[in-house]
Amino acid sequence: MSIQEPILLLDEQKCRQNIKAMAEKARKHQIRLRPHCKTHQSHIVGQWMREEGIRAITVSSLKMAHYFAKDGWTDITVAFPINVLEIDRINQLADRIRLNLIIVDPEVIPFLEKNLKGRINLYVKIDVGYRRTGVHPQDKKALDHILNTIKFHPKLNFKGFLAHAGHSYRSRSKEEILEIHRENMTILSGLKSDYYEAFPGMEVSIGDTPSCSVVDDFEGVDEIRPGNFVFYDLAQNQIGSCQKSQIAIALACPVVAKHADRSEVILYGGGVHFSKDFLALENNKKSYGELVERTPEGWSDPIPQCYLTKLSQEHGTLKVTKERFDQTSIGDMVSILPVHACMAANAMKSYRTLDGLWVDHMNGIIEQIKTAY
Amino acid sequence: MSIQEPILLLDEQKCRQNIKAMAEKARKHQIRLRPHCKTHQSHIVGQWMREEGIRAITVSSLKMAHYFAKDGWTDITVAFPINVLEIDRINQLADRIRLNLIIVDPEVIPFLEKNLKGRINLYVKIDVGYRRTGVHPQDKKALDHILNTIKFHPKLNFKGFLAHAGHSYRSRSKEEILEIHRENMTILSGLKSDYYEAFPGMEVSIGDTPSCSVVDDFEGVDEIRPGNFVFYDLAQNQIGSCQKSQIAIALACPVVAKHADRSEVILYGGGVHFSKDFLALENNKKSYGELVERTPEGWSDPIPQCYLTKLSQEHGTLKVTKERFDQTSIGDMVSILPVHACMAANAMKSYRTLDGLWVDHMNGIIEQIKTAY
Repeated sequence: MSIQEPILLLDEQKCRQNIKAMAEKARKHQIRLRPHCKTHQSHIVGQWMREEGIRAITVSSLKMAHYFAKDGWTDITVAFPINVLEIDRINQLADRIRLNLIIVDPEVIPFLEKNLKGRINLYVKIDVGYRRTGVHPQDKKALDHILNTIKFHPKLNFKGFLAHAGHSYRSRSKEEILEIHRENMTILSGLKSDYYEAFPGMEVSIGDTPSCSVVDDFEGVDEIRPGNFVFYDLAQNQIGSCQKSQIAIALACPVVAKHADRSEVILYGGGVHFSKDFLALENNKKSYGELVERTPEGWSDPIPQCYLTKLSQEHGTLKVTKERFDQTSIGDMVSILPVHACMAANAMKSYRTLDGLWVDHMNGIIEQIKTAY
Repeated sequence: MSIQEPILLLDEQKCRQNIKAMAEKARKHQIRLRPHCKTHQSHIVGQWMREEGIRAITVSSLKMAHYFAKDGWTDITVAFPINVLEIDRINQLADRIRLNLIIVDPEVIPFLEKNLKGRINLYVKIDVGYRRTGVHPQDKKALDHILNTIKFHPKLNFKGFLAHAGHSYRSRSKEEILEIHRENMTILSGLKSDYYEAFPGMEVSIGDTPSCSVVDDFEGVDEIRPGNFVFYDLAQNQIGSCQKSQIAIALACPVVAKHADRSEVILYGGGVHFSKDFLALENNKKSYGELVERTPEGWSDPIPQCYLTKLSQEHGTLKVTKERFDQTSIGDMVSILPVHACMAANAMKSYRTLDGLWVDHMNGIIEQIKTAY
């Protein structure tokens, strides 16, 4: 495989294994796995999900919902507050697939009443502590208002309560993740019992990769929506969701310069490839990625003390040991595990498997890449 | 103009004014303006540069060089260490245009000797203090080695010394920027006089937006290569390069939720739109952008105390005053000045002028945007 510029390597086997493990966990607990596709944004990775029996997905925009509907997905949740400006896209999708939207504010209900053409399912997003979006669980007035309006509306079907415990990303151990999950479930189970009589078919849907990776008690949960787990990354490893050996993507970058005095190697690979997410290290230092070594099977675990310390638009500065420095030449390709897989995939816009096959990304310009030269 | 999702607004008049001001400055000082196109990556903005008499440009990758060569640019510097893996692209370009590459390491010379088909110009990159890439100015052994090799090589033409004072980005005042510029010029003028006899046509090329915006003494400089100045941004304003009123792009984002208790507005507009660059504020807070108000002419200066405090993949959290909160509704479009224009433009992949015209970006998928629905 001839590579001249940064590309995103995808270890299909690891990725399929990550999907399989989560699918088996869901089956074991008899809950629906509705994975979030904003991480991979790929028809091909979606197909690997289908092969594990997955039939429902989550996305983060209506554009992404269209991308996956085009590939045959018929049960899609857009886990993002309803953007009323995209009502035409909503109506187009509602006509073709089982479309599930989430509501975070009663303000949009009159708009939906007036503008919806077909029928949609609605989850009410509950803010379980992340404080980004969602109805506060103690705001019974807002909840009653939303649910009473939905109940008698012919085009709105209440599906249940949905939460994203994004604050689990601040965890640094399994115990912290489990504690957050217990708090969430206390909130969501309380709400479910409050409203179950009025809506006997209602569900509880939860969604973050840390909880879904670590928890083994899904009492009260009907559906899980993890996304990052298909690839995992260094941030998830720091949180405690995965081993580094489970990380399924790596950026391959050309070496373009070397600085012996600083033991630094300069890569063609910067913020436009990795994104600017970083891990905060001790002594105010940052890591934007860790060096691995290609092996016949894929890549090694990270090489100690070899990590990206700086990123500018196209340059990456890789700090390495003296030994590694001496083994590295201009023109080598080196591989780096990313800090945040979703953002790196979004920036890179396509993948290449270890077998040399291109894998699509919604942002992708694969045809251009393949035919440009 | 009907907008449903985040788009990048471009104020053509401000952008043209920024280009014009820099072009006039270059003319006044009788130096060449070779603007860096990695900020805009656009044929149309390139055309606005041509209309100011600009005939030479800088880019940050060979792919970008091809993009601009396709649009008729014939004198292009790739201000990035030579990526030997892209030798085919180098040979293709050298055949068609005046191609200027930069050398940071003697290690690549034997490779070029063996693989170059046509003739190229070479700048030797000098590390004037940023410590990213370049030959250390006191490393006379490396400099002599590079220059003596180039001197007798039929396909390599030594153009001069090139520097990028990226450390000027850490400045917080005009005085600090000027001090860095004086240090650079001491280094570069020293080198020029050391080697001028052997290479009487050699030039000195410098390149950062802070210096080029603020300096008014270009003694010893033959060429400037600023890039960011076409748009400017909040980071450049913090450095002292521009007024906020000169910033020529803003992200327009739909409001999708509101939280009265926190005086926060949630936007459809996240890390995949803005990138994750931020300004560090007091009290450990971060700003990812500042709110402006649309006016008939474009937009206002930023509204005090209204800024983006958090970004996730698609969500932005906008902190606003109580007054502004009460004026904001779900479904509104709000406009945000970005922290880092180059990264935001790269993420957004296209622009829309205030007159509603689409402007291309190299990463762009404008045709897809326009025809998708």
